[in-house]
Amino acid sequence: MAVVTIWNEFRHEREDDDVSAVYPDGIHETIADGLADRDDDSSLEIRTATLDDPDHGLPEDILEETDVLLWWGHEAHDEVSDAVAERVQQRVLEGMGLIVLHSGHYSKPFKRLMGTTCSLQYREDGARERLWVVDPGHPIADGLEEYIELPKTEMYGEPFDVPEPDRLVFNSWFEGGEVFRSGCCYRRGSGRIFYFRPGHETYAIYENDDVRRVLHNAVEWAVPTEGAPRTFGERD
Amino acid sequence: MAVVTIWNEFRHEREDDDVSAVYPDGIHETIADGLADRDDDSSLEIRTATLDDPDHGLPEDILEETDVLLWWGHEAHDEVSDAVAERVQQRVLEGMGLIVLHSGHYSKPFKRLMGTTCSLQYREDGARERLWVVDPGHPIADGLEEYIELPKTEMYGEPFDVPEPDRLVFNSWFEGGEVFRSGCCYRRGSGRIFYFRPGHETYAIYENDDVRRVLHNAVEWAVPTEGAPRTFGERD
Amino acid sequence: MAVVTIWNEFRHEREDDDVSAVYPDGIHETIADGLADRDDDSSLEIRTATLDDPDHGLPEDILEETDVLLWWGHEAHDEVSDAVAERVQQRVLEGMGLIVLHSGHYSKPFKRLMGTTCSLQYREDGARERLWVVDPGHPIADGLEEYIELPKTEMYGEPFDVPEPDRLVFNSWFEGGEVFRSGCCYRRGSGRIFYFRPGHETYAIYENDDVRRVLHNAVEWAVPTEGAPRTFGERD
Amino acid sequence: MAVVTIWNEFRHEREDDDVSAVYPDGIHETIADGLADRDDDSSLEIRTATLDDPDHGLPEDILEETDVLLWWGHEAHDEVSDAVAERVQQRVLEGMGLIVLHSGHYSKPFKRLMGTTCSLQYREDGARERLWVVDPGHPIADGLEEYIELPKTEMYGEPFDVPEPDRLVFNSWFEGGEVFRSGCCYRRGSGRIFYFRPGHETYAIYENDDVRRVLHNAVEWAVPTEGAPRTFGERD
Repeated sequence: MAVVTIWNEFRHEREDDDVSAVYPDGIHETIADGLADRDDDSSLEIRTATLDDPDHGLPEDILEETDVLLWWGHEAHDEVSDAVAERVQQRVLEGMGLIVLHSGHYSKPFKRLMGTTCSLQYREDGARERLWVVDPGHPIADGLEEYIELPKTEMYGEPFDVPEPDRLVFNSWFEGGEVFRSGCCYRRGSGRIFYFRPGHETYAIYENDDVRRVLHNAVEWAVPTEGAPRTFGERD
Repeated sequence: MAVVTIWNEFRHEREDDDVSAVYPDGIHETIADGLADRDDDSSLEIRTATLDDPDHGLPEDILEETDVLLWWGHEAHDEVSDAVAERVQQRVLEGMGLIVLHSGHYSKPFKRLMGTTCSLQYREDGARERLWVVDPGHPIADGLEEYIELPKTEMYGEPFDVPEPDRLVFNSWFEGGEVFRSGCCYRRGSGRIFYFRPGHETYAIYENDDVRRVLHNAVEWAVPTEGAPRTFGERD
Repeated sequence: MAVVTIWNEFRHEREDDDVSAVYPDGIHETIADGLADRDDDSSLEIRTATLDDPDHGLPEDILEETDVLLWWGHEAHDEVSDAVAERVQQRVLEGMGLIVLHSGHYSKPFKRLMGTTCSLQYREDGARERLWVVDPGHPIADGLEEYIELPKTEMYGEPFDVPEPDRLVFNSWFEGGEVFRSGCCYRRGSGRIFYFRPGHETYAIYENDDVRRVLHNAVEWAVPTEGAPRTFGERD
Repeated sequence: MAVVTIWNEFRHEREDDDVSAVYPDGIHETIADGLADRDDDSSLEIRTATLDDPDHGLPEDILEETDVLLWWGHEAHDEVSDAVAERVQQRVLEGMGLIVLHSGHYSKPFKRLMGTTCSLQYREDGARERLWVVDPGHPIADGLEEYIELPKTEMYGEPFDVPEPDRLVFNSWFEGGEVFRSGCCYRRGSGRIFYFRPGHETYAIYENDDVRRVLHNAVEWAVPTEGAPRTFGERD
């Protein structure tokens, strides 16, 4: 049994009718449904947490229990406390998986773990995206066709200021003329990190079957393994 | 159920009393026993193949069925036919896992997949080796302590002419003053490749509990996943 | 002074009027002109060699003297002798730079050095390509804008069956809906390798200023440095 | 002309007689001398800055002008202001080279850029170290023999909690039984980062000819290139 915690800023859905029309219960609940639907062997315990919960829903004990954390944030990155951001970072280094979604590229935990600005270009034009699988042998691509097509989405364009990914799984084509490294795998400390681009709040991206498949694959990929000791400090 | 094929040159053991004293049934059988001992959930079907079998024991159908191939060779690399070497290479690119052991660094399949000379330095001095875990979060290190100690072994020293590994899991210290990148992970095509240094034929390395643990971990790590299509050629 | 050898198959230009109209003296001569034009400090000695020269123009002494080799081939990869292909590979491992152009992805030296099929998808539709700079700090991108635009080109699409590049410099967008990792850097042994996608024989790609700039940058990047000894074999 | 700024905490040398005996003018001055000695073509402008200078000697204009920053710190990492640490990080992302020395693994700029704890094991036993060149083709290894030997040094041992290096240049053997990845190259944003292990304050490490050669090579390697634009934000 792996514990999955889906963290969502959960502001757009309460403030903006266009968003609540798409995600009436919040993006986190839609993602939770998607994971539960694919959890055939009931191996996942799925929880949610949001910015406005006490401790942003991520007190120490919750993070300790969490095997994989998903993170969606956009307009309120700055309201995430440094203490929680650091706690998330430390837990990843100890082994917790982290899946960063869409505008989460600018979240505190992701920027801390990458060490770069995580900046990019964007255009909110609702045009077409194709996420090409460039690493067909990667478990996050299990069961996909050669690409995922999203008919209407926000564009993210290069350069994407992140460290060279350990593995690039998806490479996006945008109708308007841009490309983007949309599925990037990293290891930091003992933790696995996956950045996955799709997910704008006004398009029903998390209802898409292929996107759901990717998220489920990514959760399974990011579950920590037993590992060996991380022993530091003075040595006899 | 994953099919594991252990390939062994199986010459030293039949030609040299010092070796047959250590591995009376051949290195492949000792490795097979080690894997079977740890296969608690009977998820592995373990086979063996040797150089002097027809087609070196690796005809197309056997390779097709194999999920993970282990390779031990030393004095007769040149006797492996180019056809079989190429077949192994192609199967790895299609997804088959490959675990290359010790002097297998000079085997045809490994050299083809790396593209480099795979040369190194060595000294057969029976001195001590410590394989430090440098990537404690890697599944191949599951259940180990901070290092594996081998009291008597052959030394392999840097430079090791291989591409920079995707992940370095073990880094060896040798009593005589050398170091070596002893556990190197690669992806080529859809296949996972792990090079593991220990394994000289006159030391009972494959009886060592930690070494057996590593081999079992590595087999589990190298099993292919479903993946996405590898479609090449002209596109409409 | 660095010695640059431009190798060209030089068949299309002699067999096909459409090609000779674009490259009357052969692709190699156009590339040579482009390099010479940018060689402000006369630091390059530029030579050419073609398939139908004796030893394909690459006898041992020529390769020994060459600091950076550029490679264009397409219809006659199989006619390159294994001996020359291996010689090129060995020289790269010893430090010679190698720049592989366009359909050279299927050349013997590149496939040997990569260890993979180097397969891809393609469509000869003369549509638009944009090569986005995804690594703006890389010397191969020196002096470029955010992308290079080629109005008419052949499409190459993912998956591109090569090892994960050490650095990805260019990521291509194609009008028809595909993406491609168009500028890939590798190190193998002591040699630097750069694969650069553009270059179809019926489009005047090597007349393009930005393409010429990239080739010149890549040559400078690929020149071997002094390095340290590559000492292999038995050690006292 | 490249501007090199050598930053030193400069406390041990003023507080501890054992250290001032080795580095009477401060570690920064000894490093500066070493760089100047090898600067045959006078291509470097060498400056120093220390913790107790105003703004730690690194106000914005100085960082703007600096092409390569070297960083030595140990007992007072926490006294470096977050503002300066962030400024250094941002300058690296824009292209400034950064060479982090010895106990600088725990410095704020390095930890920010790596995103990990940068922890390790250590033992101050004055025993022997050999830094093996594992990447003989790397410019940082130019002119070295197969290893650098330091007769008396502090031990640093694995695991070293940093991201997998882009290139590992040195791999250390320690007399007491440990290994360490002692020369690690990274790219973050447009900047080159090199971590180099040797340098304890009570051994005259920076007087060692090979160490000086490495530092000079590393400075040359880390000088920023022209590059392409780093354009971020909304796109038309």
